[in-house]
Amino acid sequence: MIRIDSQANSRLKLLGKLRQRKNRKKEGLFIAEGVRLVEMAADSAWKISFALFSDSALESERARILAEGLEADGVTAIAVSDAIYGRLTDTESPQGVMAIVENGLLDEGSLSGLELSQNSQLLVLDGVQDPGNAGTIIRTADAAGFDGVICLDGTVDLLNDKAVRSSMGSLFNIPVAAEVSHDAFLAFCLKRGISLYVTALDETACPHFRADYKKKCAIVLGNEGNGVSDTMLKANGQRIYIPMSGSAESLNVAIAGAIVMYEAYRQRG
Amino acid sequence: MIRIDSQANSRLKLLGKLRQRKNRKKEGLFIAEGVRLVEMAADSAWKISFALFSDSALESERARILAEGLEADGVTAIAVSDAIYGRLTDTESPQGVMAIVENGLLDEGSLSGLELSQNSQLLVLDGVQDPGNAGTIIRTADAAGFDGVICLDGTVDLLNDKAVRSSMGSLFNIPVAAEVSHDAFLAFCLKRGISLYVTALDETACPHFRADYKKKCAIVLGNEGNGVSDTMLKANGQRIYIPMSGSAESLNVAIAGAIVMYEAYRQRG
Repeated sequence: MIRIDSQANSRLKLLGKLRQRKNRKKEGLFIAEGVRLVEMAADSAWKISFALFSDSALESERARILAEGLEADGVTAIAVSDAIYGRLTDTESPQGVMAIVENGLLDEGSLSGLELSQNSQLLVLDGVQDPGNAGTIIRTADAAGFDGVICLDGTVDLLNDKAVRSSMGSLFNIPVAAEVSHDAFLAFCLKRGISLYVTALDETACPHFRADYKKKCAIVLGNEGNGVSDTMLKANGQRIYIPMSGSAESLNVAIAGAIVMYEAYRQRG
Repeated sequence: MIRIDSQANSRLKLLGKLRQRKNRKKEGLFIAEGVRLVEMAADSAWKISFALFSDSALESERARILAEGLEADGVTAIAVSDAIYGRLTDTESPQGVMAIVENGLLDEGSLSGLELSQNSQLLVLDGVQDPGNAGTIIRTADAAGFDGVICLDGTVDLLNDKAVRSSMGSLFNIPVAAEVSHDAFLAFCLKRGISLYVTALDETACPHFRADYKKKCAIVLGNEGNGVSDTMLKANGQRIYIPMSGSAESLNVAIAGAIVMYEAYRQRG
């Protein structure tokens, strides 16, 4: 385990840069923070570039085991003082453990390689903006046994700190494609025989629990304020909506996604 | 409309105090912030003590109509400078409108007055700690047509800023009881013939979609880390769990609540 005592170290300076999307994109790297999250990254097919441990964190056996495991896998583990760690983290009560991970998202071109069965279910984000919502949706898609998540152009960066944290590690365990154009996605659905279910607030839509998800299908969730894009609304899909009683005017998009995904889970049996 | 130019004004000083739970409790007042939230409070049975508008906010017709409507109902509307408003708000991009509202939650004693039908569904929070989760659950319970939300001792204060905001006004529209003791709640269920469904990660639990919610029932959600309390686990209820595939280890409690509530909605038909 190596030790770094200067904040001017290039690896530590890289960390600060990775708070910005453009730098994450340029470097092909992002930050995963927290013991459990780093453990899950280490156990997944995603590649860790290096990991950082604060002195306090290394007092716990769990963190030491994690650091040793990473080194055994050839990943550099770096110890830093609590003061330096504190300046590098964004979280309020940091656990003192973070990893710099290589972008393992699928891109548009790799969609064709996605393995699908006759009743595979996919979740599609069409403009979701809040990183917490996006991360929570990935976590729920994983739990509901979905076969993948596809993020269309205009969706928040999933490698954003908060999105990564909200996914609770599911990001590392379910295929997730990002920056997919609407056209490429629709072509993919057509080619692979995927039925489209588009969430909408619309009189021609059917209640979400009357739709049939027992086939190869993709469920599309839209932007928090504006819903799904016109392109998706006009695509050859079935519009679905979640009925609401009471005075509620809308549902949070992560909540809406969970409701539809678990109805799909229930039907799949 | 009156104008206040001094931050030393007693009403403005009260606002700062209401950021703390003990003061909200002592004063029986809390803050609802945002145009839509104040509109919904005004349209509900909850009583507004006074409302605050920034000069910028009053440039919009919607805010002016709201202020006039409040005054017509005998509620004091106060104009303040943007600078003063900015110092009073906690939100990052304030809309310039907030109301100080009287606590309209039901207490333990008023549970007996709750109107229930033969297939009423209630949602119970047993130790939920995150205000965003609590507010989102109230919003979803309203949308799913639940007849009320009951918060047991040890649950976060629903009059917390973030809980109020996350409820998106549903707090004002669905009966919500707070600070109810576990014993009083169980006695209430027994007396009113309410079946209990307790979410648990447990081998004796049944998948949430196999339970029968087509009767007078209450669904209990627990703490984010520790789940429901021992008292609830040991109560004479049916334990239910949400099945999970993949590597996901858990679901966010607001997500779990939505999944169960909408299964109950579906069954109610």
